[in-house]
Amino acid sequence: YGKNTIKFLRVHREGKKHFVKEVEVCAHLRLTSPQEYLEGNNCLVIPTDTIKNIVLVLAKKNGIPSLEQFAIDICNHFMTTFCQVAYVKTYVQEVPWRRLHEDGVPHIHSFICVPDGIRFCEAEQCRNGPLIVFAGIKDLKLMKTTQSGFEGFYKNEHTTLPERHDRILCGELFCKWSYGECKDFDFDCIWKKIRECILEAFAGPPDCGEYSPSYQKTVNSIQMHVLSRVSQVQVIEVVLNNTFYNVVDMKNLGLTNDKEVLVPVEAPYGSCACTLGRKKFFEA
Amino acid sequence: YGKNTIKFLRVHREGKKHFVKEVEVCAHLRLTSPQEYLEGNNCLVIPTDTIKNIVLVLAKKNGIPSLEQFAIDICNHFMTTFCQVAYVKTYVQEVPWRRLHEDGVPHIHSFICVPDGIRFCEAEQCRNGPLIVFAGIKDLKLMKTTQSGFEGFYKNEHTTLPERHDRILCGELFCKWSYGECKDFDFDCIWKKIRECILEAFAGPPDCGEYSPSYQKTVNSIQMHVLSRVSQVQVIEVVLNNTFYNVVDMKNLGLTNDKEVLVPVEAPYGSCACTLGRKKFFEA
Amino acid sequence: YGKNTIKFLRVHREGKKHFVKEVEVCAHLRLTSPQEYLEGNNCLVIPTDTIKNIVLVLAKKNGIPSLEQFAIDICNHFMTTFCQVAYVKTYVQEVPWRRLHEDGVPHIHSFICVPDGIRFCEAEQCRNGPLIVFAGIKDLKLMKTTQSGFEGFYKNEHTTLPERHDRILCGELFCKWSYGECKDFDFDCIWKKIRECILEAFAGPPDCGEYSPSYQKTVNSIQMHVLSRVSQVQVIEVVLNNTFYNVVDMKNLGLTNDKEVLVPVEAPYGSCACTLGRKKFFEA
Amino acid sequence: YGKNTIKFLRVHREGKKHFVKEVEVCAHLRLTSPQEYLEGNNCLVIPTDTIKNIVLVLAKKNGIPSLEQFAIDICNHFMTTFCQVAYVKTYVQEVPWRRLHEDGVPHIHSFICVPDGIRFCEAEQCRNGPLIVFAGIKDLKLMKTTQSGFEGFYKNEHTTLPERHDRILCGELFCKWSYGECKDFDFDCIWKKIRECILEAFAGPPDCGEYSPSYQKTVNSIQMHVLSRVSQVQVIEVVLNNTFYNVVDMKNLGLTNDKEVLVPVEAPYGSCACTLGRKKFFEA
Repeated sequence: YGKNTIKFLRVHREGKKHFVKEVEVCAHLRLTSPQEYLEGNNCLVIPTDTIKNIVLVLAKKNGIPSLEQFAIDICNHFMTTFCQVAYVKTYVQEVPWRRLHEDGVPHIHSFICVPDGIRFCEAEQCRNGPLIVFAGIKDLKLMKTTQSGFEGFYKNEHTTLPERHDRILCGELFCKWSYGECKDFDFDCIWKKIRECILEAFAGPPDCGEYSPSYQKTVNSIQMHVLSRVSQVQVIEVVLNNTFYNVVDMKNLGLTNDKEVLVPVEAPYGSCACTLGRKKFFEA
Repeated sequence: YGKNTIKFLRVHREGKKHFVKEVEVCAHLRLTSPQEYLEGNNCLVIPTDTIKNIVLVLAKKNGIPSLEQFAIDICNHFMTTFCQVAYVKTYVQEVPWRRLHEDGVPHIHSFICVPDGIRFCEAEQCRNGPLIVFAGIKDLKLMKTTQSGFEGFYKNEHTTLPERHDRILCGELFCKWSYGECKDFDFDCIWKKIRECILEAFAGPPDCGEYSPSYQKTVNSIQMHVLSRVSQVQVIEVVLNNTFYNVVDMKNLGLTNDKEVLVPVEAPYGSCACTLGRKKFFEA
Repeated sequence: YGKNTIKFLRVHREGKKHFVKEVEVCAHLRLTSPQEYLEGNNCLVIPTDTIKNIVLVLAKKNGIPSLEQFAIDICNHFMTTFCQVAYVKTYVQEVPWRRLHEDGVPHIHSFICVPDGIRFCEAEQCRNGPLIVFAGIKDLKLMKTTQSGFEGFYKNEHTTLPERHDRILCGELFCKWSYGECKDFDFDCIWKKIRECILEAFAGPPDCGEYSPSYQKTVNSIQMHVLSRVSQVQVIEVVLNNTFYNVVDMKNLGLTNDKEVLVPVEAPYGSCACTLGRKKFFEA
Repeated sequence: YGKNTIKFLRVHREGKKHFVKEVEVCAHLRLTSPQEYLEGNNCLVIPTDTIKNIVLVLAKKNGIPSLEQFAIDICNHFMTTFCQVAYVKTYVQEVPWRRLHEDGVPHIHSFICVPDGIRFCEAEQCRNGPLIVFAGIKDLKLMKTTQSGFEGFYKNEHTTLPERHDRILCGELFCKWSYGECKDFDFDCIWKKIRECILEAFAGPPDCGEYSPSYQKTVNSIQMHVLSRVSQVQVIEVVLNNTFYNVVDMKNLGLTNDKEVLVPVEAPYGSCACTLGRKKFFEA
């Protein structure tokens, strides 16, 4: 049980310059005994209202040095304060406020919301177990208008899809990775580097791109690129929900449409997921 | 990988009387080899477009006798047709069309959408493994205005919640259960019976209700009631996302508010989940 | 300016039997002077926080006899209390809680949310002007599987739609009507009667239906039926956003699909709106 | 009647460099005769499917030089092609694709979706009337963490809001303006300039900001700034839906919270709208 979507804004001031971090926190606990379920005995139950208070108090006391550090702080607090807690899991998601700039000059206290991929993290811990930290990005929408195809696939009597060597590749990415021993990591810096790797692997070189023979291969390229460039990442999961763009057939309208006008097909959509680690892998 | 939200309407006609089933299907596969991820070799890949075609063809040929039977049909088709499929998982969700009635008379071909709890099911199978069938209901919003409290909970310096012996209990339920050997089940009939059990356990007897000492106990009561009344259910998971209703303090406005005007607190919300089986249990 | 989505629950108790009304209120004002906009002088501004308080106080004092009466009460309060208010507009929308029944027996304090068309109303008044009351229903989704066609329409070189004399008619209805002099109306009873009229006009007789030659004609039939049966309605606006269902072409899959499997086309969708009064009309 | 959410992607290629414009178009017509409503006579009705085809054909033939020009093209086409059209209104909204950059180098064919304010426009025309063009921005979320207050407002027995001279100002902006004679306008350039004006007026100078005594005054400042800097704008409407941030009272938790931890109050929210023209004004 736990509390979801604990939303708050943490303002930090350095003289007249203000810094903001608005987050949404979910914190879930499992107790050592299920007596509240079976007997309605609440004596060990930490109310979800108290969970909320603790999250706010930690934000006040420690600030939010990074999403990951804040998630770790919450886990540590529950494990060290309550012996009836058997397991704690924390999820922290950021509202993407960016500092406003006017003619290139940063504003001291004004911000704009720019949701081009949402940063999140998770931390979880079983009593007597290690603290595990995940980080990720979601709702990251990318498109490339060429250097993508899908050919040589399996065919039978239910196949109507034509082969294509030049199609639009468009989708929403969800990436989540785990860190190993994570003492003294610069989580902000690592996260930015991984985001860059994802964009590079998706798009390829700026002057020519890189051919993608399938969504699956693009997912794998992203994973390989991140694992090879960011040593702190142990395992990376990528889900790519793709939007298919249909070239409008304009023959009946007396026109030739050379892939200039395309219609997005939002449902159904394809989905492709893979989890890749450093030595073992499995896909789902 | 797979195809999500394959939406279609299946119309069945008996003379002038029409029957409709509109569903949303997700079908996911795992292949025996990951070569399409690693090498970009698509020769075993069944395109998600073909997956969609197969779902529509099965709906045309077999109809949708029940959501569960349709999910089973899809799993069977993939397992028997494609030897490269190692695992298949199908999710089917229903659009809640109900036949219109005029003065109590059912209309032969007109329907109204009544979303008071969405029915869904899942079927999954590994090659050489058993076919596992789940069914469930989601987005079921219930409220009781008394016979609910929360007292005797754990307190420390972060506790500000007062004890309450008469509060509003309101939440959105998600229930999902698994069937054991499921040959010749009347899935529609069982589903309706389980829905009734959930409502009974939540509300208690119509003339007096039943006291709930916590969300956790209500979740457990629902599970116990379903397991005791419906022998086909093996394991049942219940998630209750509750909306807290705050009694508005009207002292500053010169009024006494005897729990007559309450404001819903939508974020943060508490969540409470439990999975209960016939012999073992664990909560999360 | 004003306050939107003031949400609250009003509980009314008669002995052990409870009645609930959960609503969402928007209240907007225009002041006689724009000085707060031009000069930043707030001395006449009623804070939106005060607006919220007033709505809650009125709910506490008067209850919610009907949505319409409550909207009227709010308008009256602002007009009689604040001479700086030049115009007030109130919107009230209901959360569709229905009493739970167990084996046909109504439960004294348990409710289920059944969103099969949302009831709303509006009241507005200019200083020295009449109080105008509107009521309506929205998000009402209806379908008929036959007795609908579209033929004989205008054609030119951009027309690719075939004529159809038997198609699915499916859409989401928004209806809003105004009352004339509205003293001593039984708003609940009238609203229910209008809802019935809408369903009847959409579906036709239960044993055979009624042919619809276009969405436009169905919209008009609904309006004519309501105006002829409910004398209190002065003007009625109907918007029908229709979902087109495409019969899946299965020739390439070796099958004949006799309108048994259809795929909903959610975007783009057609929309058709008309406002009809007792003597004059205009469509948009 | 008309067609809503006609979504498509227009790709333009200059050698290996690609340009994309993805839009959502709504096109509505009113015919000179209402006979399709009254008599079910469809002979003048242009099917919404044809409307969709026309929009796609115009995109293919003309491209989308700017949203506004495309909306104008659609209006012109309907007015000149169909004499039965009495009125046409077009709405065009953009999916905010931005070119990807790697180390500052623009990518030739890869894009990322960055929804920091959505651009839209409208064009409407009555037969024998002028063509009127509107443009706008919506879903623009801005925040300033100081230089905002609300004092000196009207008080009575329902007032509980304290006066504040230093609060968070946060809200979602909707701005829509009309152009006068709009031949040969550089719509893209003007739109960018107006967006800059909005940000400047909201935030004030980057090194100190500018005090806002109310949401109303901020709305007015935005309007005055746009009207004074962009001569092509005739009338500008601004709606500011504000999110209130509540400073968490931590006294019971033994802490002093100097506006460091704040909780957003998403419902109810205040709303403030004003329409301002060059000579006349009115607020709502």
